[in-house]
Amino acid sequence: MTEAKLSAKIPAVVLGATGAVGQRLVSLLVGHPWFKVVGVAASERSAGRSFADACHWVLSDALPGAVARMMIAPLDPDAVRCERPAVAFSALPAEVARQTEPAFAEAGFAVCSNASAHRETADVPLLIPEVNPDHLALLDVQRAERGWPGLLVTNPNCSTTGIALAVKALDEAFGLRQAVVCTLQAVSGAGYPGVASLDILGNVIPWIPTEETKIERETRILLGRVKDGRRVDADIVVSAHAHRVPVVDGHTFAVSLGFDQTPSPQEAGRVLGAFCGVDSVRRLPSAPVRPVRVFEDVDRPQPRLDLAGEGGMRVGIGRIRPCPLLDLRMVGLVHNTQRGAAAGAILNAEFLVAEGWLR
Amino acid sequence: MTEAKLSAKIPAVVLGATGAVGQRLVSLLVGHPWFKVVGVAASERSAGRSFADACHWVLSDALPGAVARMMIAPLDPDAVRCERPAVAFSALPAEVARQTEPAFAEAGFAVCSNASAHRETADVPLLIPEVNPDHLALLDVQRAERGWPGLLVTNPNCSTTGIALAVKALDEAFGLRQAVVCTLQAVSGAGYPGVASLDILGNVIPWIPTEETKIERETRILLGRVKDGRRVDADIVVSAHAHRVPVVDGHTFAVSLGFDQTPSPQEAGRVLGAFCGVDSVRRLPSAPVRPVRVFEDVDRPQPRLDLAGEGGMRVGIGRIRPCPLLDLRMVGLVHNTQRGAAAGAILNAEFLVAEGWLR
Amino acid sequence: MTEAKLSAKIPAVVLGATGAVGQRLVSLLVGHPWFKVVGVAASERSAGRSFADACHWVLSDALPGAVARMMIAPLDPDAVRCERPAVAFSALPAEVARQTEPAFAEAGFAVCSNASAHRETADVPLLIPEVNPDHLALLDVQRAERGWPGLLVTNPNCSTTGIALAVKALDEAFGLRQAVVCTLQAVSGAGYPGVASLDILGNVIPWIPTEETKIERETRILLGRVKDGRRVDADIVVSAHAHRVPVVDGHTFAVSLGFDQTPSPQEAGRVLGAFCGVDSVRRLPSAPVRPVRVFEDVDRPQPRLDLAGEGGMRVGIGRIRPCPLLDLRMVGLVHNTQRGAAAGAILNAEFLVAEGWLR
Amino acid sequence: MTEAKLSAKIPAVVLGATGAVGQRLVSLLVGHPWFKVVGVAASERSAGRSFADACHWVLSDALPGAVARMMIAPLDPDAVRCERPAVAFSALPAEVARQTEPAFAEAGFAVCSNASAHRETADVPLLIPEVNPDHLALLDVQRAERGWPGLLVTNPNCSTTGIALAVKALDEAFGLRQAVVCTLQAVSGAGYPGVASLDILGNVIPWIPTEETKIERETRILLGRVKDGRRVDADIVVSAHAHRVPVVDGHTFAVSLGFDQTPSPQEAGRVLGAFCGVDSVRRLPSAPVRPVRVFEDVDRPQPRLDLAGEGGMRVGIGRIRPCPLLDLRMVGLVHNTQRGAAAGAILNAEFLVAEGWLR
Repeated sequence: MTEAKLSAKIPAVVLGATGAVGQRLVSLLVGHPWFKVVGVAASERSAGRSFADACHWVLSDALPGAVARMMIAPLDPDAVRCERPAVAFSALPAEVARQTEPAFAEAGFAVCSNASAHRETADVPLLIPEVNPDHLALLDVQRAERGWPGLLVTNPNCSTTGIALAVKALDEAFGLRQAVVCTLQAVSGAGYPGVASLDILGNVIPWIPTEETKIERETRILLGRVKDGRRVDADIVVSAHAHRVPVVDGHTFAVSLGFDQTPSPQEAGRVLGAFCGVDSVRRLPSAPVRPVRVFEDVDRPQPRLDLAGEGGMRVGIGRIRPCPLLDLRMVGLVHNTQRGAAAGAILNAEFLVAEGWLR
Repeated sequence: MTEAKLSAKIPAVVLGATGAVGQRLVSLLVGHPWFKVVGVAASERSAGRSFADACHWVLSDALPGAVARMMIAPLDPDAVRCERPAVAFSALPAEVARQTEPAFAEAGFAVCSNASAHRETADVPLLIPEVNPDHLALLDVQRAERGWPGLLVTNPNCSTTGIALAVKALDEAFGLRQAVVCTLQAVSGAGYPGVASLDILGNVIPWIPTEETKIERETRILLGRVKDGRRVDADIVVSAHAHRVPVVDGHTFAVSLGFDQTPSPQEAGRVLGAFCGVDSVRRLPSAPVRPVRVFEDVDRPQPRLDLAGEGGMRVGIGRIRPCPLLDLRMVGLVHNTQRGAAAGAILNAEFLVAEGWLR
Repeated sequence: MTEAKLSAKIPAVVLGATGAVGQRLVSLLVGHPWFKVVGVAASERSAGRSFADACHWVLSDALPGAVARMMIAPLDPDAVRCERPAVAFSALPAEVARQTEPAFAEAGFAVCSNASAHRETADVPLLIPEVNPDHLALLDVQRAERGWPGLLVTNPNCSTTGIALAVKALDEAFGLRQAVVCTLQAVSGAGYPGVASLDILGNVIPWIPTEETKIERETRILLGRVKDGRRVDADIVVSAHAHRVPVVDGHTFAVSLGFDQTPSPQEAGRVLGAFCGVDSVRRLPSAPVRPVRVFEDVDRPQPRLDLAGEGGMRVGIGRIRPCPLLDLRMVGLVHNTQRGAAAGAILNAEFLVAEGWLR
Repeated sequence: MTEAKLSAKIPAVVLGATGAVGQRLVSLLVGHPWFKVVGVAASERSAGRSFADACHWVLSDALPGAVARMMIAPLDPDAVRCERPAVAFSALPAEVARQTEPAFAEAGFAVCSNASAHRETADVPLLIPEVNPDHLALLDVQRAERGWPGLLVTNPNCSTTGIALAVKALDEAFGLRQAVVCTLQAVSGAGYPGVASLDILGNVIPWIPTEETKIERETRILLGRVKDGRRVDADIVVSAHAHRVPVVDGHTFAVSLGFDQTPSPQEAGRVLGAFCGVDSVRRLPSAPVRPVRVFEDVDRPQPRLDLAGEGGMRVGIGRIRPCPLLDLRMVGLVHNTQRGAAAGAILNAEFLVAEGWLR
């Protein structure tokens, strides 16, 4: 990334811009050093209206004036006029993303998607730059097979992002074999309007549709590797229990972990605190200095107190202790709409730039 | 229990009556067919004042007038004047219970305690009548060794009560070997004032002091047996993760279970739905017809909707499904201040009456 | 109401049965001594499906089995087969109620509506039996002008119901002239799904569409009288401020009141505590013994503790004290989905029976 | 304020440093351009321990390392060693502040207090720099009468701060005569541990001890003037209704206002939006550019979305509309722990520096 690059930002469009994750993307991209929002697109219902008019803005950051006045385009690459190469950040619902994201890749966009539609597609990288940067190699296969001038990468489900960041370093050091995960997830993970207040005020909902399967499958993909242009998923048993709790932002997760070699809690803490991505990732604008922070206090991390560090890009880990059944237990916290959604997609786009896939 | 008994209720005193569990005991005992509150006792700070005056009543049921006017006695058996035999329901803090409960047993009271102080004492039954009625046999040892004219039984920790009721029938049918438990616990479990609102509004606290150890140890006691006057704890590995969530009443718990023989979810559901205590337990005034209700809807049980059934004495179970790591997964819900505390102690007292230990 | 009547219940249908108020109506009518649910009707989207299938049941009471199996009829009197006379309880949205309720009245139903559509219509009683029983006289006009074999009465907005019950006795005794009202309203008042959790968790929304106008207008109607077949609204100035707060059930309202004759707080408390409806109202099955309870404790009433009394039909009043600007200040609490909605409509139907309009 | 000043910060001590407001003071003062925390003092219970050890830190900002290691002094000016002049920021409880604050002023400290103890004392300015900068003149009287080398100023109650900022400009322009205020206050206003979660989860508490009296009295002081060295309170009738709601930070207040000359909502909005303090206030480091922001959206301001602007120093106003009883109605929002407490005290200290009372 050179000064020259900085003086000519890469054009970016946001697909599904009026939803909760779309809004967060817009908010984060305003002032981004490398990208510049030049268009917003959404469903037929919103298309043709100004962004300020069509969007029920739910963030505490102010709606950026430049985007407020943009007209919303339909979800059609031809309708989104901008110079290529360009990034298309997708916050589309899965069922819309299935067709729309390939169409944008075919039209030359580098699609960085937060949608679940293509996360398990063989030639689409499911990517967390600190966790599996090597998966970018799948783009060679994608280009060869699809013939797209653009490309498509995805970031994982919000809970999975936190879990994968929390266990990656331990997997490398001690060989992860088994994980039982119990999540306590914030309502912002369900978008807007999402969870009805009557359902969640003073309550727990012990079920989030498709969430447990996503956690189990995506974790194995992220901890796996790419060999000869094919994904080889990690041979890890993951069992997930997902719950919705009355918290606005921040997914808490409790994990019991089994390893090839049993680490002590102290060893695990050292490994986690020292974890960082490869050099090219560490230098990205949205990358945290340390993707994991290990808390010492026995009652931390907590959503209300511990989400903000490193721009919401850092996973908090606490209470590392032996597990009577497996080897270790701990609790984690991830900012589900930052690291686990919008900012995760942006970090992926930054990594594409750094690796030369987008310039 | 005969009509004669009904016409002469057993006198009952409540120790630690001004606290949250003490209040619930008072509220439940007013109108109880077998017991009659004749005294309330509490710490020095409250002693000598009227109950209405000393107590910050936190229940939605009205403070019963008869008890409101009682003078609070100090925690001294000599100060509590009533005919013996009498029951002493204890909602004392653990550190106070340690000395006070034996003193009351020595003074002739049948102490039914919700405190943790004596739950692991070798000759004190830790009792859920539907789960381990045979543990009452420890009272013979207790009498022989201590020479008390009274006695002391305890009920388990609130979370453990729900978990033990949820797995007891499965253990009998399929042989439980391993359990990973993750709890989402209501604030009422911490008493009053208990958890500060600043700590829990819109938040999760991933730690409850001593809770995980209690769940792990007490579950093994409850599923164990008594042999030759000694407790033989169950050979089960339990790993617990405890969390406080912004819910008023109702502890949710997610469990993964491993068995000697793997049941199908359908088999497990049938066994749980058919579970009931022995005959002498089923007929007790506070005993539920079915201690476990299996919910079919995928998003149940929930604290706001599913606590009330069977007077809060029923544990709800839902989402019985295979576990990738162990055998089965499910979610449970227990009313922590009813079944898990005050009403659990009362059920124990009823069982003592039915078994002839108290009359 | 005679024994004969009890042996032959009046058939009742619920319009808008799948919504939150419709569900509460269904739940309250099961087991009602005078009425029997024989049909449920709802919008096209639900019609033709079973109630259990079409309805996302949000109450903690169990869905009654008899109603669960009913097929939902469309909102067409011809499609709802039942003997007449019958009651039609309406929990329809205002815009649907506008046409549908008159159609049911024309088809012979005694429509008891919770909808706002006809609350201000000149010949439709807006009725709280304890507050303005004389408004039933408007039905003579309604029959004369409309020629309906059935009839239409409405109950007020949920907040207004509480306020009117709270001030009626004071108005009679001291002549109410002015009221400033500030409400803190529960989310259940917005129906289901209603308020999004992202909007209200840990938050206050200082606006509820059309609520302030409803409070101001409906209060004047309820405290007015009927003269020569026409409503004469009370000459009272009402200023309302409405807020949504993160409470499930129970609207709190703070009021400052100005009177013709200034009462002392003690006088006002005595008048409020003695308030009760006319004899024919007091004997109705759903009528509370005392529609107002005056709390002595300085921090009451509170939604969590004080909603349940008298089946949710009682308004709680507390903190009666002088107002530096007007004469008196106080705080009130009304169960918005019971007294303020479903049970209010049922009480109106009971009053119609007692007054001979329905038999 | 010159460069010279910046290179030698004024020493500051925080009294009552371990409480919620004390912590906020510590957090805000770290990095302050004019002040430097050199000491922390608290009650006997904490004195002698390190700040990190004695304090249950409840803020999401990290505990500043420099302060973490400080030893807590007792509340005795002799025990707090620092060069004079120095500022003593007081977050003491009222009953402690009564004696302690004068003792520190007598020992040469410029005491800027958030406590209520001396807010109504005749020669102690109750000060919001944008609202009543002229009240600083009372310090001449204070010095003359008390002979203190230091001084004592106070900032108002958290709700009152918001109300006074909201109405000051309207009072100047149109002559305020009457105000009815209804507050919906966050739990952080009660300090830590403060409100028990059992009391406020999903609930409203319609009473806050002494709050209504504080609002009524302090508003009249703040809008009054100083004449011949004496406070002349404003001749305004204020009636307050205070409620606690389950919100973490941010007091909402609904007001009805009566004026000498009735403004239109548009005029009022213009006057409020243009409001700013005198020049010497506007340039203070903590002063907002605009102390009031008028929101256009009908459902704003809201605590979750609108607290952050201008460092929490800005009051939000919305829904300006006619009042049927008085002249205007509107809703306001104030950050109760920033503008309404800690940052308010700091702004007062900055104003003392600017006006030459502290250097």
